[in-house]
Amino acid sequence: MSQEIRSGSEELSAVQWTGASLALIDQTVLPHRTETMDVRDVDTLVDAIQRLVVRGAPAIGAAGAYGVALALLQGEREGWSADEIRAAVARVREARPTAVNLMVCVDRVMTRFDEGLEAVLEEAAAVQREDVEANRAMGAHGADWLLERVGVERPLRILTHCNTGALATAGWGTALGVIRELHARGRVEVVYADETRPLLQGSRLTAWELAQEGIPHYVQADGAAAGTILRGEVDAAIVGADRIAANGDTANKVGTVGVALACADAGIPFLVAAPTTTVDLATKTGDEIHIELRGEDEVLEWGGVRTAPAGSRGHNPAFDVTPGRLVTGLVTERGVLEVSAGQLPGERLG
Amino acid sequence: MSQEIRSGSEELSAVQWTGASLALIDQTVLPHRTETMDVRDVDTLVDAIQRLVVRGAPAIGAAGAYGVALALLQGEREGWSADEIRAAVARVREARPTAVNLMVCVDRVMTRFDEGLEAVLEEAAAVQREDVEANRAMGAHGADWLLERVGVERPLRILTHCNTGALATAGWGTALGVIRELHARGRVEVVYADETRPLLQGSRLTAWELAQEGIPHYVQADGAAAGTILRGEVDAAIVGADRIAANGDTANKVGTVGVALACADAGIPFLVAAPTTTVDLATKTGDEIHIELRGEDEVLEWGGVRTAPAGSRGHNPAFDVTPGRLVTGLVTERGVLEVSAGQLPGERLG
Repeated sequence: MSQEIRSGSEELSAVQWTGASLALIDQTVLPHRTETMDVRDVDTLVDAIQRLVVRGAPAIGAAGAYGVALALLQGEREGWSADEIRAAVARVREARPTAVNLMVCVDRVMTRFDEGLEAVLEEAAAVQREDVEANRAMGAHGADWLLERVGVERPLRILTHCNTGALATAGWGTALGVIRELHARGRVEVVYADETRPLLQGSRLTAWELAQEGIPHYVQADGAAAGTILRGEVDAAIVGADRIAANGDTANKVGTVGVALACADAGIPFLVAAPTTTVDLATKTGDEIHIELRGEDEVLEWGGVRTAPAGSRGHNPAFDVTPGRLVTGLVTERGVLEVSAGQLPGERLG
Repeated sequence: MSQEIRSGSEELSAVQWTGASLALIDQTVLPHRTETMDVRDVDTLVDAIQRLVVRGAPAIGAAGAYGVALALLQGEREGWSADEIRAAVARVREARPTAVNLMVCVDRVMTRFDEGLEAVLEEAAAVQREDVEANRAMGAHGADWLLERVGVERPLRILTHCNTGALATAGWGTALGVIRELHARGRVEVVYADETRPLLQGSRLTAWELAQEGIPHYVQADGAAAGTILRGEVDAAIVGADRIAANGDTANKVGTVGVALACADAGIPFLVAAPTTTVDLATKTGDEIHIELRGEDEVLEWGGVRTAPAGSRGHNPAFDVTPGRLVTGLVTERGVLEVSAGQLPGERLG
């Protein structure tokens, strides 16, 4: 159940097919322990997605893609009908509601369901490989655009929110991929990593990835982001996305829209980095995006100890929606759309 | 060292002179334990202010006022010269740099230093009494203004950040005093209390005060504030202040300016409630306000357990500055100044 994963500069993989099971890095115990969970059945996968053992829209998408294979294998072991297998796949597909990648990736792999396990695994592997390729392309496009737009000779000071690195994707990273590319070019002075309450993905995961890459960084409270930006300590902010509407409205980790508002006020670029699979053209605007409300205890407790008084309720939306008018640039594997300047995904990516 | 404090609807007092010592509610252990710390010497008081045993600009001001009396009594016990006593008072005055109330209150009491202990205690008691009176007046002014401005018949949905209640003041509260007044008039539907990282004053202290008053409330992550406001779930935000410049720029708990930006974007009122003693006319703009950088561990650890990786640094500004252009109303004991509409404190309170 537990093993050391690779560390240092080697590429880490949040989601890995072992041949008969899905190995997930357990992101709930990082950075204290690096353990992988060996997933062999659908219920365990759904639970792992809901408990955020695996999280990040593209990583969940890859896990969902392999989930179809898991359903086939489990169905074979347990004598399920094709309908029962499809019902199991549907449960994986709906394990979390906000990110579109999960549904897109499951649906893509399901187009080869009738061809059997080998075809399903081939398609899931393609999903994973293409995500890494997309991330690499995003890194290059985003770094090029940002260096030109900021237009200074010195290394940049970048703010990011939540985790969008190798842990959140099939590998390399979206927003953090752009930062890694900038770092590879010697153009990162420092990264401000918002800690990302309530589950501290920034402090636990982004800081861990940055530390492994040797990228200088500060962890800060989410509330510090706007002030840090308004004081002129940041050149640009880059975040990922869970779902992007046709008009550029972007659902991402709760706290993102506050970063976007501060960037707009300070007149610095606010970039969203996400593969085109995160753009959901069927969603016209952010008003149509269902925002997952997670359990109250995530904001009322820490480490199993209650921090709020016994009588208090918690309000725990997992995401928020940043209006497209605040998105200076949307970085996809195809290039950068200047959304706030009118380059809408619905018109450019349709 | 420890005793039960009063609970329920009885007025609680964060700072209380016992006759020979200063009793402070230890706000670092709330809401789990309610203990008071009996302070008899200057070093203990300075440490209590720095460790946030007592916090909130007006409460620190009241504690500093009584600190002059503590210095006189300790000087008498330990045979200090008048200069040594004055040096001890100066250490109290500089225990924290951002809030102006501490300096103002200490300076006010020091005008009666030469008259001796009885006069000093009389002045300190006046500081405390007048703060409570100012809070009550602010509550009425703020509630009147807000009900008229929001202009609906139903109870209001209010967002607040950090703790500005009886614990943060000499009694009753500033921003939370306005909320208490609205509640007394039956006009509060719900309060969204930002948890206020890194030290959770919102979750630990504001929620505790709200629970004691029976005011319906949700605790939420600081990052949730902007999204909650932009989704139309909030009618107005009210916060306190640690220092207000002549142009209305307001230093307050880190995270405040993000709330203000969201209110401006959503077109709802952003109110600052603070006594006129928090307005520092000698400070022309927020650029002149020294922002306290607190220890990195506050953002890298929780409950003594490290949450960030070993190699990560922390960035921990305790405050941020909200530009006056974002302050819809500044509520003082004298009334409401519409700062963003041009009613600047430097012109109206000079």
